[in-house]
Amino acid sequence: MTMRQPVELEKSYLLLNHGPVTLVSAAQGGRRNVMAAAWAMSLDFSPPKVAVVIDGRTWSRELIEASGEFVLNIPCRAMAEQVLAVGSCTGREVDKFANFAIGTSAEAVTQAPLIDGCVAWLACRVIPEAHNQRRYDLFIAEVVGAWADPRVFAEGRWRFPSDDLRTIHYLAGGNFLASGDAFAAGGQ
Amino acid sequence: MTMRQPVELEKSYLLLNHGPVTLVSAAQGGRRNVMAAAWAMSLDFSPPKVAVVIDGRTWSRELIEASGEFVLNIPCRAMAEQVLAVGSCTGREVDKFANFAIGTSAEAVTQAPLIDGCVAWLACRVIPEAHNQRRYDLFIAEVVGAWADPRVFAEGRWRFPSDDLRTIHYLAGGNFLASGDAFAAGGQ
Repeated sequence: MTMRQPVELEKSYLLLNHGPVTLVSAAQGGRRNVMAAAWAMSLDFSPPKVAVVIDGRTWSRELIEASGEFVLNIPCRAMAEQVLAVGSCTGREVDKFANFAIGTSAEAVTQAPLIDGCVAWLACRVIPEAHNQRRYDLFIAEVVGAWADPRVFAEGRWRFPSDDLRTIHYLAGGNFLASGDAFAAGGQ
Repeated sequence: MTMRQPVELEKSYLLLNHGPVTLVSAAQGGRRNVMAAAWAMSLDFSPPKVAVVIDGRTWSRELIEASGEFVLNIPCRAMAEQVLAVGSCTGREVDKFANFAIGTSAEAVTQAPLIDGCVAWLACRVIPEAHNQRRYDLFIAEVVGAWADPRVFAEGRWRFPSDDLRTIHYLAGGNFLASGDAFAAGGQ
């Protein structure tokens, strides 16, 4: 079951601020793919922008450069096996959606699909920056749509009702950290 | 007490991969400052590079542009109050180091100081990219030195012997998430 409610664009940076691993989905002309990306961050509040590293050898890179769009999907712990799986093979040879039982939903904002089972989604439109893309594999994009599972993100705040729904942070070698306890500093 | 051991440069991306909040320290000609930055990520493995957003209105920005250097310090939960404090005022008006009892150590790699009490440090040399800096407040830098507290990062792995030593992830409004439990996916 995937629950999804819109998030105001000016609050969409909150979905990425704590540095979770992402799944990058892209589609172009009937072709589509999904890859894992730990190197993604917010770049601006309003209009909201993101920066993400997309390796030049990936098939997703071709789809993103052709379509000018992608979705940053924020997976939860229940999806860790799939995150690892889609990061360990290429969509040129494997239909990752079929192979790893990854469902998708469409939103009218971009061609790129939203990955079911994730807990937040940022639909992004590439701001063409040829030098960054070529030299650093770095893509800058404007966030044009944002959604979250209201069980875990509502009224601008993350909360994790179960361990399965925690967001996750990639380390290396198939190892992750789960997002842990929330706490306030400064007596707030 | 601050413990610090060198980390091989090609493994330095592991210090930032899970998306912790950072403290950015900079120094130039006897002036120095420290600010908080949640928007920092790795950009490449070898030579290791990072990308970080440094607001154009900050004093740190002036020091970084003048010196071409900064350190990304990775704080732990015990430092959350200081992270919030240095992110809530400007070094133009306040000596943050004195005001918030922030100690520093020097390493010969950069002029920028290493913040005591942090658990990892990435010394960075700016790769000048005027367009990115001006248009996106985005700085790209090469990592030229890396260290970690061996109690929490050793042999390429994070481990948190106490809650105080956990790395932290910034949400908003003075709220953080602690880095949580590590787990392996893919049967590893």
